[in-house]
Amino acid sequence: MAKRAGARSAVLDSPPALIASASTVGAKEGEGPLGKYFGSVSEDSYFGEQTWEKAESRMIESTLAQLYKNSRLTPKDIDLAFAGDLLNQCTASSFGLRNSGIPYFGVYGACSTMAESLALAAMSVESGFAGCALAVTSSHFSTAERQFRMPLEYGGQRPPTAQWTVTGCGAFILSEGEGPRITSVTPGVITDAGIKDANNMGAAMAPAAYETLRTHFSDLGRTPSYYDLILTGDLGAVGSEILRDLMRKDGTELGDKYADCGLLIFDREKQDVHSGGSGCGCSASVLAGYIMDGIKTGRWKKVLFAATGALLSPLSTMQGESVPSICCAVSIEV
Amino acid sequence: MAKRAGARSAVLDSPPALIASASTVGAKEGEGPLGKYFGSVSEDSYFGEQTWEKAESRMIESTLAQLYKNSRLTPKDIDLAFAGDLLNQCTASSFGLRNSGIPYFGVYGACSTMAESLALAAMSVESGFAGCALAVTSSHFSTAERQFRMPLEYGGQRPPTAQWTVTGCGAFILSEGEGPRITSVTPGVITDAGIKDANNMGAAMAPAAYETLRTHFSDLGRTPSYYDLILTGDLGAVGSEILRDLMRKDGTELGDKYADCGLLIFDREKQDVHSGGSGCGCSASVLAGYIMDGIKTGRWKKVLFAATGALLSPLSTMQGESVPSICCAVSIEV
Repeated sequence: MAKRAGARSAVLDSPPALIASASTVGAKEGEGPLGKYFGSVSEDSYFGEQTWEKAESRMIESTLAQLYKNSRLTPKDIDLAFAGDLLNQCTASSFGLRNSGIPYFGVYGACSTMAESLALAAMSVESGFAGCALAVTSSHFSTAERQFRMPLEYGGQRPPTAQWTVTGCGAFILSEGEGPRITSVTPGVITDAGIKDANNMGAAMAPAAYETLRTHFSDLGRTPSYYDLILTGDLGAVGSEILRDLMRKDGTELGDKYADCGLLIFDREKQDVHSGGSGCGCSASVLAGYIMDGIKTGRWKKVLFAATGALLSPLSTMQGESVPSICCAVSIEV
Repeated sequence: MAKRAGARSAVLDSPPALIASASTVGAKEGEGPLGKYFGSVSEDSYFGEQTWEKAESRMIESTLAQLYKNSRLTPKDIDLAFAGDLLNQCTASSFGLRNSGIPYFGVYGACSTMAESLALAAMSVESGFAGCALAVTSSHFSTAERQFRMPLEYGGQRPPTAQWTVTGCGAFILSEGEGPRITSVTPGVITDAGIKDANNMGAAMAPAAYETLRTHFSDLGRTPSYYDLILTGDLGAVGSEILRDLMRKDGTELGDKYADCGLLIFDREKQDVHSGGSGCGCSASVLAGYIMDGIKTGRWKKVLFAATGALLSPLSTMQGESVPSICCAVSIEV
């Protein structure tokens, strides 16, 4: 039974464990500072397929194959999957899990989808709804770029605030077994700071991250000092600085406990990614690769994973709308 | 605590109640056989807005206003919202709930989204994650038509197997209070019958409905006779007949206990909707309007709500893919 703590967060009495994880990224992500932490790096952005959309689904399938191997489980052992991605109608996930036979709930929280998936998977295991649950999310630079921005062939210039969609996939299996545990969940509320520039999603998402972090600390009576690492999804350079500022105005210094997946995954000086990485696969692959490694090796014992998402569409931007954003946080503890 | 029954279904020990419901539809749906059962009928397909996408979000907002009135609750009383729609990046929901301040989980199951939302909302209440949860889904004929098919001005011909996307929204509040209860959940697996005609989604979705119904009956040791009403989402005329056939081959006659929201909502003889209605708002508004009325007035005591969704996108169809489908079932009992 999860108990509601304060206004919004839930503390899990029988916290489910992340018993296995897997990650796949593309070549550019493999060349970045975290390259060696990913389960697999594909040199082929098509993953052997004819289109990038099919490639993204194939990347999910190969990440799941890795996950089954790591966990010594088969799809039949998994009671429930929570999956999502950035493609219209979330087809990377539906096609990626089409042949798995795993009961499926599609979720959409833009780049916050991995935190949402982990939150719901944890809830399903703790409540006995599922013995074993899967959380998997993905993104692909080339599918996202042509869907949200321009055809790649167009070679459009990107402003300095823009982020680079990560080609990557991260997946976790949750159950009552051994491993770091999801001990609490703080779901996000939609926050709209009025930003209308779809090339500055860090600025749009930072207030959502601030709102969720503030609520999390308040609900649980914690300060950042409780955690070894506070990790946002993909605010990038612009959004991270805004988040630090917003917290500072509240009297909270995030300091060097704070990191952002979008900043960790690329070397901004060498890799021409402007403000950093983004996409459902960014925080998912960083968490499943780099962070899980750091938890296993004892570098971090208490991690707050606060993934952020911009809940816009190209059409909402064309219709003059601002960018509603959200941040869902889950605490992961050894 | 939910107990897993059989291979996939969960039976809820403390089944949450649907303590309030609300529905809004467009003019055409208001003129259909169920017109008088909807909470509100809008003669204006723009709902006072300048674009159909903004109209769909406005329809959600007005349905929620109706829901708050019906339940005597305010947004502050609601701990968690599960919401989804058909628009790219689910923006009808994210913009529709942008100002609500309700903690938000976006979900995507195409036209099965209401069943998914109810399943997750029930899980969240039963597990103590939320005291009070909201499930809301919508669709709009004009947003769907131009996104999935052709500009409305084009006036394209539709084949007889095509369905008419319902302009509608349905919403429920779940809590421990009084009302019909969600007593069990059978999540769906993705089923792909190889149908490549995106204008024949009934045929694509029927095997998914069959798979989930068969699993539900088997897991819970029930036959159709247990229920007063077995309701699929929107298989339409073509899909409903295929479902009946598939069940018959299994030795199960659905008979007159079976109905389909896509067939109920329109008069196919008079309303030119070809195979029937569809969309996230179809089963949502029919359930929140007509079915809730029938439960309240004692017409039905045990209803199996099995909403179906086609997990395709226009791009997946253009790339030659078949239509993966899913069906999630929840039983609602007095």
